[in-house]
Amino acid sequence: MDLKKYLVNRCALVDRALDKLMPPKEEYPSIINQAMRYSVFAGGKRIRPVLVIMAAEALGYRAERVMPTACALELIHTYSLIHDDLPCMDDDSYRRGKLTNHKVYGENIAVLGGDGLLTLAFELIEKNSEVKGVKPKSVLRALQLIAEGAGTHGMVGGQVVDVLSENKKISEPVLQYIHTHKTGALIRASILSGAVLCDASKRQFAALKSYGEHIGLVFQIVDDILNVTGDARKLGKAVGSDAARKKVTYPGLYGLEQSRAEVELLSEKARLAIKVFGKKAGALNALIEYLKERDA
Amino acid sequence: MDLKKYLVNRCALVDRALDKLMPPKEEYPSIINQAMRYSVFAGGKRIRPVLVIMAAEALGYRAERVMPTACALELIHTYSLIHDDLPCMDDDSYRRGKLTNHKVYGENIAVLGGDGLLTLAFELIEKNSEVKGVKPKSVLRALQLIAEGAGTHGMVGGQVVDVLSENKKISEPVLQYIHTHKTGALIRASILSGAVLCDASKRQFAALKSYGEHIGLVFQIVDDILNVTGDARKLGKAVGSDAARKKVTYPGLYGLEQSRAEVELLSEKARLAIKVFGKKAGALNALIEYLKERDA
Repeated sequence: MDLKKYLVNRCALVDRALDKLMPPKEEYPSIINQAMRYSVFAGGKRIRPVLVIMAAEALGYRAERVMPTACALELIHTYSLIHDDLPCMDDDSYRRGKLTNHKVYGENIAVLGGDGLLTLAFELIEKNSEVKGVKPKSVLRALQLIAEGAGTHGMVGGQVVDVLSENKKISEPVLQYIHTHKTGALIRASILSGAVLCDASKRQFAALKSYGEHIGLVFQIVDDILNVTGDARKLGKAVGSDAARKKVTYPGLYGLEQSRAEVELLSEKARLAIKVFGKKAGALNALIEYLKERDA
Repeated sequence: MDLKKYLVNRCALVDRALDKLMPPKEEYPSIINQAMRYSVFAGGKRIRPVLVIMAAEALGYRAERVMPTACALELIHTYSLIHDDLPCMDDDSYRRGKLTNHKVYGENIAVLGGDGLLTLAFELIEKNSEVKGVKPKSVLRALQLIAEGAGTHGMVGGQVVDVLSENKKISEPVLQYIHTHKTGALIRASILSGAVLCDASKRQFAALKSYGEHIGLVFQIVDDILNVTGDARKLGKAVGSDAARKKVTYPGLYGLEQSRAEVELLSEKARLAIKVFGKKAGALNALIEYLKERDA
């Protein structure tokens, strides 16, 4: 399994679909389409859409079956970054080495661009019902999982607690809440929406759910570790910013060594969860290593 | 048809459903639930949910059939007001006589509260598939109509052009775009989602579409007129603010007299459109007068 090649291929598919499914740049009022495209095509790693596709493939389907929903998850992720970077939130000027949305288009368009992306995401999920073989009921179930993962019971809830925790000493349960919600919930929803769109059995659904929960945590802990040990150039953003903001992080609470041990443990659990898919889980398996070893 | 009594009754149904469908105030993290409830229960007129219900009733169904979607439309409307009031947008401190969301909860929570409401709205639309007799395909069609009405091809697009037009001389087509998109698109989506959830025929759908387009414009022109001639106490916000901001408005472009004549003409067209429903359109008919004559 050559994950690098796999990712290049799947990301190209996702990018092509995003380009096709988003309003063209020139469409009136063009500034909002430019702003949305600026952030969507700013070098994201497409983890969420790729997870939707990987879940589909583990169940024996091709990327096409889940593509509109895969794109929707990238739009939700992107909207959250745009709003997160706003002056009233994290007040970041750079992301992935490029100016943040509001620095280029102004705060008002950044707010509206985020709103537009979130709304378009749900339009795309609906569009998945046009794919041959996909049942309307499955699309509704995917919608439910994604809305729950993105809203106040998921990502937005995690954001809220994260914002409230700045400059405060927080407890382990609160850190766990932030981790499982801010990033984990949408990652889990990505995998599970792929599962339901491909008619996963109860057993298959449970396996993918367990996988999703574990890699969601891996993802977040590695993010925290990179904010301590990472290379600012590779990350495209400042290192040490969490500590400077007194943001609570995994390494901040448990130290680097224990954080790395936790990553290993969670990775092993994720691997076990998807054994049931055998060879079809090749990409899901390789992704665990990728998430663990990434440096950006 | 006693519209006042009708509205009191239907608004009570909507309020009860909203209270039931939104996360409880105490739920962790409670500030976001408080913030969302603060704006949802800040005295809105519930025009959009009532329109969903009226469409259902014109087709012979009861409010229960469309209630989750009716609530969803109120959430979308509320989120748009919260974001619209932000300092980087209209920078309003009061709405309906109460402090705006960000004045009470801070800008960061106001942004996230709006995001949470928009996401919850789509969760509620999905929930409408649990109502007996409602087909999954109809829910997906409603979702599509609402997402289109709320996004960059609808409300968000209207907001963008409105924001860009401040302090600028704008042409009639641009004013028309703002009017048909900023408010009109969601009003139209309200009526049409009610229509599809109640299995409207093509002819019935077209009739409700025409009605929705005309009252959407009535609503916006009356809004503009009230900003010139209204009573600040009744409106719960400053009068003349549009002129002060050099915002383009209908009376600003055509004068008060012609604006009022336009309202009459559009109302007549709306009335004609729903003749096909006979007595069942009683509430839809009465609403036209209400929208025309309102003073807040």
